Amino acid sequence: MAKDMTLLWGFGSPPCWRTMIALEEKNLQGYNQKLLSFEKGEHKSKEVMDINPRGQLPTFKHGDKILNDSYAACMYLESQFKSQGTQLIPESAAEQALMYQRMFEIPTFQEKLYYVAYYEYFVPEGERHDSALKRNKEALTAELQLWENYLQKMETGSYLAGKKFTMADVVGFPVVACAFRNGLSEERYPKLTEYYNLVKERPSVEAIWSKDWQKNPQGTDKLKDL
Amino acid sequence: MAKDMTLLWGFGSPPCWRTMIALEEKNLQGYNQKLLSFEKGEHKSKEVMDINPRGQLPTFKHGDKILNDSYAACMYLESQFKSQGTQLIPESAAEQALMYQRMFEIPTFQEKLYYVAYYEYFVPEGERHDSALKRNKEALTAELQLWENYLQKMETGSYLAGKKFTMADVVGFPVVACAFRNGLSEERYPKLTEYYNLVKERPSVEAIWSKDWQKNPQGTDKLKDL
Repeated sequence: MAKDMTLLWGFGSPPCWRTMIALEEKNLQGYNQKLLSFEKGEHKSKEVMDINPRGQLPTFKHGDKILNDSYAACMYLESQFKSQGTQLIPESAAEQALMYQRMFEIPTFQEKLYYVAYYEYFVPEGERHDSALKRNKEALTAELQLWENYLQKMETGSYLAGKKFTMADVVGFPVVACAFRNGLSEERYPKLTEYYNLVKERPSVEAIWSKDWQKNPQGTDKLKDL
Repeated sequence: MAKDMTLLWGFGSPPCWRTMIALEEKNLQGYNQKLLSFEKGEHKSKEVMDINPRGQLPTFKHGDKILNDSYAACMYLESQFKSQGTQLIPESAAEQALMYQRMFEIPTFQEKLYYVAYYEYFVPEGERHDSALKRNKEALTAELQLWENYLQKMETGSYLAGKKFTMADVVGFPVVACAFRNGLSEERYPKLTEYYNLVKERPSVEAIWSKDWQKNPQGTDKLKDL
């Protein structure tokens, strides 16, 4: 059991989900955890700021080692617990190349998603423009189509980087889930829907779901027209 | 010699520099390369789009394996040529944790830098606001101070993640260099200046410098007041 690990996390946060999915996949259950409230500003509390000067969640500690970025935490966990649980980085050069490529395209997907779903959060009222939101929606539509095409070219039942569940899915599934939570059309994105339905049944995802999403069910319809 | 590798790159691009520095550090000189012009839109040419549907540089191939994101290319090269050239990912858990943490904080630094240095590029004329640029500058100043503090807490002559040059420097140095190129004050950021001067002398950096920066000397003063 991972008693020397501590995770501070917040509801509905794809970066927090990533770290939690990686912990589950590496069989590192039983870590200490504390749910903090973004609404109450607890991510800016002294408890977080002492470990994470950016005041963001997740904030993760393994002994005295601090990993606050979700990609950093996931890569560290895979490296330190390589032979435990799911192998998240494939061995073969071809599989690895595709895995790294998809893994590092995910932040672009996430950014484009956020600039539509959370436009009002990022842009103060006096600086908002319909033209900017329209452009953001067009960029997200192109991004969604790119991922739909990636999946279309692969065999049915594939994960983001092939037939195995990999680190690309650990970091990418939360972004796909966030898109559907914000009203993405299952009809217009059938391959992303298939992928979403495949991965949401995984025990690692079900484990974190039960702590988060099921208790926090409301989404938005901000992506419904895309 | 890396005759089975091909890099398509553009002048003055931190993501391109990353990939080129990683290739040098892993002793993978002699790869095929082609310099494309952002100004002429060659990053959107068929040659690029056929390999990279995002139409971005770098675009990198190793045999039939395609790695278009600079982080993906760097991680792949380190993994596939682990025992060759510089070891870019430290072995010990503590060094590795700090390396991954700093490595994955760099995209935030880069984003904040771009939103000041290239504000006019990202935001169309009718959507620009002095208040937004002011906020971007404040965010970048806080970011620069964070990195200055990270370096301040380490021994003199340290790299971004300790006494060894690591992947954090491969991905991070180009962003620091880009900040100085856009007028960052050496007086107000003495630790970042010390770091910049330390790393720019490295053979891997000198090798790519001679192809790029020295032929492309003009910078801006957009960061001079920060």
